Amino acid sequence: MSRRSFWGWGLESDEPTAEQRAQAAERASKRYGVELVSPPVPTDASLDLRAPRIQPPAALAAIMSTDAHERASHAYGKSYRDTIRAFHCDFPNPPDVVAFPTTEAEVVAALEWAGETGTTVMTYGGGSSVVGGVEAPDAADRVLSLDLGRLDRVLEIDQASRAARIQAGVLGPALEDQLRPHGLTLRHYPQSFEWSTLGGWIATRSGGHYATNHTHIDDFVESVRMVTPAGIWESRRLPGSGAGPSPDRMVLGSEGILGVITEAWMRLQARPVYRASAGVTFPTFASASEAARLVVQAKLWPANCRVLDPVEAGNAAGLSGEQALLILGFESADVPQGPFIAEAVRIAREAGGQVADDQVIVSDGSKEGVGRQGAVGEWRNSFVRGPYGRNLTAGLGIVGDTFETAITWDRWPAFDAAVREAVRDALQRVCGGGTLSCRFTHVYTDGPAPYYTFQGLGRPGAELEMWGELKKAASDAVMANGGTITHHHAVGRDHRPWYDIQRPGPFTEALRAAKKAVDPAGILNPGVLIDP
Amino acid sequence: MSRRSFWGWGLESDEPTAEQRAQAAERASKRYGVELVSPPVPTDASLDLRAPRIQPPAALAAIMSTDAHERASHAYGKSYRDTIRAFHCDFPNPPDVVAFPTTEAEVVAALEWAGETGTTVMTYGGGSSVVGGVEAPDAADRVLSLDLGRLDRVLEIDQASRAARIQAGVLGPALEDQLRPHGLTLRHYPQSFEWSTLGGWIATRSGGHYATNHTHIDDFVESVRMVTPAGIWESRRLPGSGAGPSPDRMVLGSEGILGVITEAWMRLQARPVYRASAGVTFPTFASASEAARLVVQAKLWPANCRVLDPVEAGNAAGLSGEQALLILGFESADVPQGPFIAEAVRIAREAGGQVADDQVIVSDGSKEGVGRQGAVGEWRNSFVRGPYGRNLTAGLGIVGDTFETAITWDRWPAFDAAVREAVRDALQRVCGGGTLSCRFTHVYTDGPAPYYTFQGLGRPGAELEMWGELKKAASDAVMANGGTITHHHAVGRDHRPWYDIQRPGPFTEALRAAKKAVDPAGILNPGVLIDP
Repeated sequence: MSRRSFWGWGLESDEPTAEQRAQAAERASKRYGVELVSPPVPTDASLDLRAPRIQPPAALAAIMSTDAHERASHAYGKSYRDTIRAFHCDFPNPPDVVAFPTTEAEVVAALEWAGETGTTVMTYGGGSSVVGGVEAPDAADRVLSLDLGRLDRVLEIDQASRAARIQAGVLGPALEDQLRPHGLTLRHYPQSFEWSTLGGWIATRSGGHYATNHTHIDDFVESVRMVTPAGIWESRRLPGSGAGPSPDRMVLGSEGILGVITEAWMRLQARPVYRASAGVTFPTFASASEAARLVVQAKLWPANCRVLDPVEAGNAAGLSGEQALLILGFESADVPQGPFIAEAVRIAREAGGQVADDQVIVSDGSKEGVGRQGAVGEWRNSFVRGPYGRNLTAGLGIVGDTFETAITWDRWPAFDAAVREAVRDALQRVCGGGTLSCRFTHVYTDGPAPYYTFQGLGRPGAELEMWGELKKAASDAVMANGGTITHHHAVGRDHRPWYDIQRPGPFTEALRAAKKAVDPAGILNPGVLIDP
Repeated sequence: MSRRSFWGWGLESDEPTAEQRAQAAERASKRYGVELVSPPVPTDASLDLRAPRIQPPAALAAIMSTDAHERASHAYGKSYRDTIRAFHCDFPNPPDVVAFPTTEAEVVAALEWAGETGTTVMTYGGGSSVVGGVEAPDAADRVLSLDLGRLDRVLEIDQASRAARIQAGVLGPALEDQLRPHGLTLRHYPQSFEWSTLGGWIATRSGGHYATNHTHIDDFVESVRMVTPAGIWESRRLPGSGAGPSPDRMVLGSEGILGVITEAWMRLQARPVYRASAGVTFPTFASASEAARLVVQAKLWPANCRVLDPVEAGNAAGLSGEQALLILGFESADVPQGPFIAEAVRIAREAGGQVADDQVIVSDGSKEGVGRQGAVGEWRNSFVRGPYGRNLTAGLGIVGDTFETAITWDRWPAFDAAVREAVRDALQRVCGGGTLSCRFTHVYTDGPAPYYTFQGLGRPGAELEMWGELKKAASDAVMANGGTITHHHAVGRDHRPWYDIQRPGPFTEALRAAKKAVDPAGILNPGVLIDP
């Protein structure tokens, strides 16, 4: 198997060819009316890392590595900032050692060693963080990156309860591969699905697709097992409980500061048989948004209910660029979905949407590929391919990123206007202009989760500074207008300044005290979420 | 308005007449084949409380009381044990002062005074705790019961998001009364609905009815505001967030140990128009349970999906006592429910259930009372009347209680067998026999929430000791067989020994540290959930 790319999304075999990158540079050159040249991609030969400041102990040498490629691969996540730095082999503070435990006992041993040696531990799942969640603090004297990737098995299946006990380090595809023979699926699809892990999803409260009603991974966690320096934190397997504050909900979103999640019992679903989908067009983003509100408040719980603004509908779903798109998808293992989508389409049409009757596609599972045709199918393919796009453009000097949030419906129109104004102003100021678009990745009865994408032309060498200005403008606007600094990308180091504003004051003290109770030496992901 | 009964459920005007109690005694006498005599109910004249050990400060005198009736009313919740003690005017440790703040500022002032004077604060919502959640510890030198009942208003309505900002002290009926003119409803119906408050529901993670899919109050909380000794803990209004561990989820279930909840933004629903219901009979509890599993795993999300064992179906729904009953209820403000219940009934029939076609009742809202007829209607009326039953039998010497839990489907059959055996053995040993029955109050895709009811004949004067033995046998069996010590009744003082077993070890330390961070003097509900 190919190694992971130390700078791009996916494997080294996923890295684009020089020709592909040259073509991408040509497209970008046309778009921006300048001549952009694609530099060669970095290789191991370009890596010149600081020597490891600590060596693996003999007892753990078999599961630890100080290999430069591994250290570079584990230095960053996959944010815009990470990709730019890694592309330029800018690794001033890589982990000194990378560990690949194969058992929970080895996780415990690695934490003990870290505690004894005062080594900072950065827990690493699939490394897809876009918020600086796996990057060590500059101030750490020595750093261990704890890669859970070899804890990748489904350990136990409970068919009656549709649940499974699963190791935390399993990547999305490997998880689904192990569930498929049992007719089961977790059906949790973050965009990072290929390169993120169950433990990472739990630690960062990831948001899945096919996920209206139950959106975040939170709702699929039946129980969780976490190694802390103070011992094993394991909850009972329960379908529901009202006993005190939920211990699982304190683990969910803890981003590695309380412990290392090693396994979880997860709620699963039978694999869908019946499906229905439709792409409903609207004259404006506002009218499509209103339709999504009415559909979700009718509690029909479509598996998928997304809205693309005209720009995104044009780029991703092949529409004219003048129309917004509401994507509806229903699915079930047990119940034909025709009546459900009929109601949703009725509501959407009453709200001004258009879809031809023969474009409302209903399947009983006997035909292949339903839901993969038309505008909906275009969008889905584009969604899965998304993260590889940056491999093509890295190093061209383009500054672009996404940010996501959530806001209640009453404030949504003013919120959107204010955020767009702030980001457009910043794009003008920083890049002399650029593009901005929005979609709803998730909708709730009380509000949408908007996901913005922006891009402008940067100056090579100044991209990170320019990105920082844009990110700050966007985040300030999200905060000032009542949103959350993240709906499903997590906090990490990058979102800390705004999370500090968002977090209720006494909760800060409670969380800090809780961390100190289970990690008294403060070795786990220091500076992520909170200061010690 | 009538005052609250200091010993019974509801108001003094809800207390039964001597004749009603005599009739209940006659029924019980026949049932147990002994002569049971109904003693007279206590009155204020029977109260002989310890003098208050502290007096209200002048600045707060207007909202504080040392009246004996108020102190007795606030000494206990409404558990079996509470009712027996209150009926016998057994109040060795009543609160010294009861406060009725009318503003959040008065809550803050009361907490400041308590902090300065070393007064223990027991937060009181509707006083319906059945787990010792509002009872002061014996060791406290002085005790304030903080009754939130005057913070009872809906402050703000957001029609677009179907949400409202609501004061924590509002009782269920008053809340729905204020929402009704706006066409909205919280639709959260714990059995204590009449005498429990929004803040109490949040603090104890109450479970509602009409609540498959979204069961606990947790899912309806959009944001919460809580006064702590360390300041105001308030989360942002958000439809969803992935920013760190959920601050709301740490408040949910905190049972007054972290702060005093003063208000919350709650997710609401439009009032249902379309309804459908059916009561499907089965030859056994096991076959009805299996049908419930299949219905809930099909994700049709009926508002109501309950199972009554043959004993409960006979007592509460007028069936023969030989059949189990699956109760299905669907409702929606927007979408006709016929197709949904048709699928659920199909699944239930395939699993061996019987229901006549004309007993599957579907309404478009034009007819009155749909869902209130037949077996389903019988059950619903009995459900709402339930808590008043104990007013009739208090003092007769009957020992009876309910306990509730949750368990995954794979373990359910063995769990039920083990719990029944343990409780029947204990009933035999303690009472020489008795009755035991079970229903599912809630079902999840991965398991049911079973709710057991037991009763036996006690010896007057020894009821509490006998109850204690039965409660211990039941709780030990629930714990030993993998359940939770509570699905929706909370922990309080009564469930502490088993919660101590259930709670993950390091989580205990994290929770203790979190409490100390926001309540350094330890004045809030000490001994509830955890020791200081």
